[in-house]
Amino acid sequence: EYSDKVFDHFTNPRNVGEIADASGVGEVGNAKCGDIMKIYLKISDDGIIEDVKFKTFGCGAAIATSSMATEMVKGKSIEEALKLTNQAVAEALDGLPPVKMHCSVLAEEALRSAIADYYRKQ
Amino acid sequence: EYSDKVFDHFTNPRNVGEIADASGVGEVGNAKCGDIMKIYLKISDDGIIEDVKFKTFGCGAAIATSSMATEMVKGKSIEEALKLTNQAVAEALDGLPPVKMHCSVLAEEALRSAIADYYRKQ
Ligand code: FES
Repeated sequence: EYSDKVFDHFTNPRNVGEIADASGVGEVGNAKCGDIMKIYLKISDDGIIEDVKFKTFGCGAAIATSSMATEMVKGKSIEEALKLTNQAVAEALDGLPPVKMHCSVLAEEALRSAIADYYRKQ
Repeated sequence: EYSDKVFDHFTNPRNVGEIADASGVGEVGNAKCGDIMKIYLKISDDGIIEDVKFKTFGCGAAIATSSMATEMVKGKSIEEALKLTNQAVAEALDGLPPVKMHCSVLAEEALRSAIADYYRKQ
């Protein structure tokens, strides 16, 4: 029921880890399943996301969507990153089973929380 | 909120994989989160679980409990394995957050399903 892209990003996730001197860190919990997601951003002086890493205890769908979402915002401006939706990430993965769509919300929320943390620190 | 043992079995899970010539295979889905778990058993002629492997798309709690559950039944008789509960596995991991107890049910159910499959094939 999972696409090849979901399996690829699940078994070989991109951008897993932490950034020690992150410009912003976002952490969110998923009310539905209790999982947690943490995203670290390294943002340049002109507002470009130079690096991004994530850590999660979440399921395969959470890992795959975070891997894809971090790939999609790397090198982009903060404004572009704020436009990324969990639907766009799911589409980039050739879809997710409806029952797993809530997992893809973790990456979107953690990303926005990390950007908010960056603004707070400015 | 997770114990050291949960993190250990999550980051370094035991018995991940498949058994090509399995004596019994069990696959179950979790109604609550939509995740899936598959367990493979290699059972000797005198009813001892000689080898056991699992594969899951589930979260960190599902991975940790499956890792611990497979360790707990390896080398045991079918009768002993049937007595293993998800509560006992969670206790062996020094506990799980209440919201993640449903994840530990996957390993117990997949194990029983694999044993049922073994009996069916006899
Ligand atoms: S949330 Fe689905 S197995 Fe844990």
